Amino acid sequence: MPSLSAYKSSLDYSYTPGLFPSMECLLHRPSSAMRLLLHSDAESSEGAEKLRKLAEEQHVRWEHADRLLRMVSGKDNCYAAVVFRKFSDDLDPAFPHVVLHCPGDTGNIGTIMRTALGFGFEDIAFIRPCADVFDPHTVRSSMGSLFSLRIHVFDSFDDYRALYPSHTLYPFMLRRAQSLETVLSEPVPAQFSLVFGNEGSGLPDTFADLGRPVRIESNSRIDSLNLSVAAAVGLYTFGRKAGMTGGY
Amino acid sequence: MPSLSAYKSSLDYSYTPGLFPSMECLLHRPSSAMRLLLHSDAESSEGAEKLRKLAEEQHVRWEHADRLLRMVSGKDNCYAAVVFRKFSDDLDPAFPHVVLHCPGDTGNIGTIMRTALGFGFEDIAFIRPCADVFDPHTVRSSMGSLFSLRIHVFDSFDDYRALYPSHTLYPFMLRRAQSLETVLSEPVPAQFSLVFGNEGSGLPDTFADLGRPVRIESNSRIDSLNLSVAAAVGLYTFGRKAGMTGGY
Repeated sequence: MPSLSAYKSSLDYSYTPGLFPSMECLLHRPSSAMRLLLHSDAESSEGAEKLRKLAEEQHVRWEHADRLLRMVSGKDNCYAAVVFRKFSDDLDPAFPHVVLHCPGDTGNIGTIMRTALGFGFEDIAFIRPCADVFDPHTVRSSMGSLFSLRIHVFDSFDDYRALYPSHTLYPFMLRRAQSLETVLSEPVPAQFSLVFGNEGSGLPDTFADLGRPVRIESNSRIDSLNLSVAAAVGLYTFGRKAGMTGGY
Repeated sequence: MPSLSAYKSSLDYSYTPGLFPSMECLLHRPSSAMRLLLHSDAESSEGAEKLRKLAEEQHVRWEHADRLLRMVSGKDNCYAAVVFRKFSDDLDPAFPHVVLHCPGDTGNIGTIMRTALGFGFEDIAFIRPCADVFDPHTVRSSMGSLFSLRIHVFDSFDDYRALYPSHTLYPFMLRRAQSLETVLSEPVPAQFSLVFGNEGSGLPDTFADLGRPVRIESNSRIDSLNLSVAAAVGLYTFGRKAGMTGGY
């Protein structure tokens, strides 16, 4: 492996700053894990010990990298990170998908990945241009949930659509849309895609012709809902309707 | 008015960085607006013109303050801010409340304020210790929605409870709680409070004895939901149940 450098989008690897996301990577995507970085101050901590053991089981080398950890996290108290190779999956055509069309914020992407996994969605499509899905900040916001998901970044929505033509599309948008309650009063097919637009501009109007457009009922006192809030409501309600979060 | 300084929690005033939150302050809380700050580069822009007109109508002075805007926003492209006096309201005892117990993140507080307003909740209680409700970053995350809400920061939950004893409490927590769907299958009273805990630690276990504890159904593949995601689901579903978002 070449010497590691501060994160840039152009690299084919990234970092998981923090004990929890590092654990998630080693547990759920060991094949992508390249190296475990530990801070020498945390040498004997319980968390570091667990990570080191897991890395050894997965034949992942570990090393001290105090300076690199500070560089990657921007913090002095980041005690661990896994270096992982970026990955790209085929989405499962049998399952519901989440499609994020041109999301611009790594925090939103990470939060939505975590929400999706919690509500039973395991397949996420990203449509370019989009914020960096593998940025350490995204990884951190996702709390490592991206390592339990199948994710794929597409150059265009048409590229996504061509691969999964039988998914019923539910674009979330403000104009020309029925209320969420109305849409959920109808049967939802087994294969469907919840599509969310960019934070500022939403989805292009043309998406209203592509499926069954949905509007989350909110009053006129706010301009729009935050993207990860809209996704939370959409994923929860569709997930319940489709029985995806399991029993309780 | 004394000379203005960079924001600190100890000040009795704060700032609304950005055109949109500044507009919201002048429209919905003109009595708290102390001064409008404009960047000289934006002098003739449409947004600045609108703000200046509104300020004049509300008898709020405006001035150029390029350096202060940069200091307050941390950015070179912040073209406007309103200086506003911090406020504290009596919550309306007739309406449902949102209670945030020891929230630690200004971004979450702002996002939840925006979500609350959109879903028809106008009264928000904060329980100390909590992140700064008036920090410019909170104001920005709220997109200025805090100026359309009644908000009050309490020293303790008991202080809140003593003032609004007849509100039925719905604490959102993982242990000793019924599923959201089960709770929503029962009638919801006109006066109720949705209570959400801290990002890391949630609500203390004792809250389970205080009302009807609720758990948002999610699977075990994530540790917990993000606070603003949990609040989004709770506020949307309770808001619909109680008919608060209005028709569609």
